[in-house]
Amino acid sequence: MKVYLLNSGSLVIDRSNVLWNIDPGIPVRFPVYSILIDHPDGLFLFDTGYDYEHVQRVLPFEEPIQQSNETIPEQLKLCGYTPEDIPVLVNSHLHFDHVGGNRFFTKGKTVLHRKELEQGRNPEPFERYGYSDKQWDHADANFETIEGDLEIAKGLHLYETPGHTIGHYSLLVQFENRQPILFSFDAAYTHENLEKEIQSSFHIDPVAGVRSIRRVKQLAQEHNAEIFVSHEMEAFQTYKKAPDCYEG
Amino acid sequence: MKVYLLNSGSLVIDRSNVLWNIDPGIPVRFPVYSILIDHPDGLFLFDTGYDYEHVQRVLPFEEPIQQSNETIPEQLKLCGYTPEDIPVLVNSHLHFDHVGGNRFFTKGKTVLHRKELEQGRNPEPFERYGYSDKQWDHADANFETIEGDLEIAKGLHLYETPGHTIGHYSLLVQFENRQPILFSFDAAYTHENLEKEIQSSFHIDPVAGVRSIRRVKQLAQEHNAEIFVSHEMEAFQTYKKAPDCYEG
Repeated sequence: MKVYLLNSGSLVIDRSNVLWNIDPGIPVRFPVYSILIDHPDGLFLFDTGYDYEHVQRVLPFEEPIQQSNETIPEQLKLCGYTPEDIPVLVNSHLHFDHVGGNRFFTKGKTVLHRKELEQGRNPEPFERYGYSDKQWDHADANFETIEGDLEIAKGLHLYETPGHTIGHYSLLVQFENRQPILFSFDAAYTHENLEKEIQSSFHIDPVAGVRSIRRVKQLAQEHNAEIFVSHEMEAFQTYKKAPDCYEG
Repeated sequence: MKVYLLNSGSLVIDRSNVLWNIDPGIPVRFPVYSILIDHPDGLFLFDTGYDYEHVQRVLPFEEPIQQSNETIPEQLKLCGYTPEDIPVLVNSHLHFDHVGGNRFFTKGKTVLHRKELEQGRNPEPFERYGYSDKQWDHADANFETIEGDLEIAKGLHLYETPGHTIGHYSLLVQFENRQPILFSFDAAYTHENLEKEIQSSFHIDPVAGVRSIRRVKQLAQEHNAEIFVSHEMEAFQTYKKAPDCYEG
């Protein structure tokens, strides 16, 4: 099995957005990435980064920086694939920085939490920026909604971690010959969120958010997994990026 | 009936605390006040401001400014009373800037939402500053917990407005000969929160918070009431302060 991290560039938010109510007024640039898994059952893509044009139009204050090879089609090409090769796209959740390339996937199915699909189509007013990019809801999208924890393929475990959004999933990847990796997605932007048990300031249910942070830590401990956080530049710089991969 | 606003001084928070996720990095000084009502059935006090020593010790970053006559005993004295004269103290919620003078009330009863009492004694980790002053839970406190909307005395209506905290109340005051006043308490710190339907960044349930903002606006419309917000300096400067009062 091979696990590729696809670089989607970076954005800027406030440190008080990363760590709810902590240190307002300090801008932080953070990475955005997706995950491609070459599995014995086929190719699985988790999330699709952000769409540069959308961010420039709707959230220019997040100062997007995206190189020309940091789109989803270009990142897949680095690994030897095209969007048409991917039968299963999973969205951890539907925030704009996780669905920006969904529109390229017109053949396979898109798997996500039932509640997330409902919420993305009818968000709360305070979620309007988060769910501002609706390009995932295109005519050729073939949604398969799920609920509860699910092993979507052997060793690929989706765990419900709501709070950041109502239908958020984290992903545990169990290899044959390598330490497992637990992708927290936005249940924890950074290791500091994990340590302090403070979630990001973008959330729908802060009580659930704290429980999900604890769940991520508990799962990592149970499975002796390394946690990969979603939006920490310092951690991301140490991760292997496509075309390099984690294999085992 | 007479309604006195008791000035408890002021504190500083970030504008992104006043308006969740908006404009981080802009400090805002805001007022803290309590409400004394001289009602035909007796005296009712709503909230008790903040304790200067507590804030200096635990939250000095909120830069408290409190004159020597801005404690609850001194403010009551301006109106001709002492804490012993007050048979009923109501807490809109148990955050430190609403309970700072609770310890002076050792004779009467303290009315509050059942869930608020539970939460104040066992808060979520992200609520630790909000509920940091536990002096309300003193040996002589005589709590009477309530649930649901309640007319605590003729024309004094408590309405459930959760979100900021789990058991938060707002207060509608109906006079005989004057336009009603609706005290939102922390369901809306400022008029901008009401207009934008964005709550403060200190909250336990943001979805409920939006519903409560809408409820405050709806109640004000139904009763043709003027809304008094809790933490807006510009609005507070236009309010009558003790020993002056609203009468009717």
